[in-house]
Amino acid sequence: MTRVIFGMTMSLDGFINDAEGRIARLYPDFDELQASELMREAIRDTGAVIMGRRTFGMVDDPDTYADRYEFQVPIFVVTRQAPARAPKENGAIRFTFVDSPEEAVRQAIGAANGRDVTVVGGPDVGMQLLGAGLVDELQIGITPIVLGKGTRLFDRLSGLPITLRKTRVVETGQRTDLFFDVGTG
Amino acid sequence: MTRVIFGMTMSLDGFINDAEGRIARLYPDFDELQASELMREAIRDTGAVIMGRRTFGMVDDPDTYADRYEFQVPIFVVTRQAPARAPKENGAIRFTFVDSPEEAVRQAIGAANGRDVTVVGGPDVGMQLLGAGLVDELQIGITPIVLGKGTRLFDRLSGLPITLRKTRVVETGQRTDLFFDVGTG
Repeated sequence: MTRVIFGMTMSLDGFINDAEGRIARLYPDFDELQASELMREAIRDTGAVIMGRRTFGMVDDPDTYADRYEFQVPIFVVTRQAPARAPKENGAIRFTFVDSPEEAVRQAIGAANGRDVTVVGGPDVGMQLLGAGLVDELQIGITPIVLGKGTRLFDRLSGLPITLRKTRVVETGQRTDLFFDVGTG
Repeated sequence: MTRVIFGMTMSLDGFINDAEGRIARLYPDFDELQASELMREAIRDTGAVIMGRRTFGMVDDPDTYADRYEFQVPIFVVTRQAPARAPKENGAIRFTFVDSPEEAVRQAIGAANGRDVTVVGGPDVGMQLLGAGLVDELQIGITPIVLGKGTRLFDRLSGLPITLRKTRVVETGQRTDLFFDVGTG
């Protein structure tokens, strides 16, 4: 049964980047995280990925997804304007550009083949999906830093009628991941 | 060796009360928390308590501290104006009203008799002590709710040169407490 999982990493004070938009300080244990059971499990369980246009553009060259992205599955990019040239694909990775998060979920569930759909960001896409009741699980990775400024993960969720039920806590180095089942009402 | 511990409970999005200043939604597991090993340990290890004027005033009648406050130890209240009549005391609880958080720490360490000094709030007092480098341990209890509005725990910490090292994670029902050693620089 496919579940839609939205995960983000934030500082203890709730920011997903610093005042200059950088995320490096949120990943002091990046190598440890990449090699962790948590990441192996995510890779194993993910059948399709959804990302926003900005997240898609965070690599210097989108052709590198096919070469070395950790999730070698179909990727759905939410954007009003698909790139002129489709990035490189391989037997596992192929790209689909869709203009709404809802449409991304619809197509990604079809492509995931029973495995999970993982929403890797950014916050706009994830928050829209939460607001639309389309997220089954929320994963918040907390890094023990105080950034003070930046983009707040939860700024878009004010007043949304969602409920969270904690299901799991996983520690990886200094990072703590909290997992929640998402309900409505 | 006395340590100064500042603990607060916040929503997943970082608020310590809701738009109306209420805290009830932050304690869905209040009874479980009161009966938890976490609370028993805090009571066992605490030799003195520091609180702000507003926290002190959250009980209807300050005489009830002597009758049934969980921490039966000397209490230091940070306020510019001590109440006209000192609240009831007993063999364990006695009240001292001081006009600065720093002075509260100085006196509380003396009174704690080798046990810990626990700063129970509010955020102003705790944040001032963090800023002054007087907190050894930070305990953040996270309740899985999204409040959207209210008082942000970390609003006063922007730009402070503190570092946090996670030392421990404790789950109590839906609540997750993260413990950090606090450093400077």
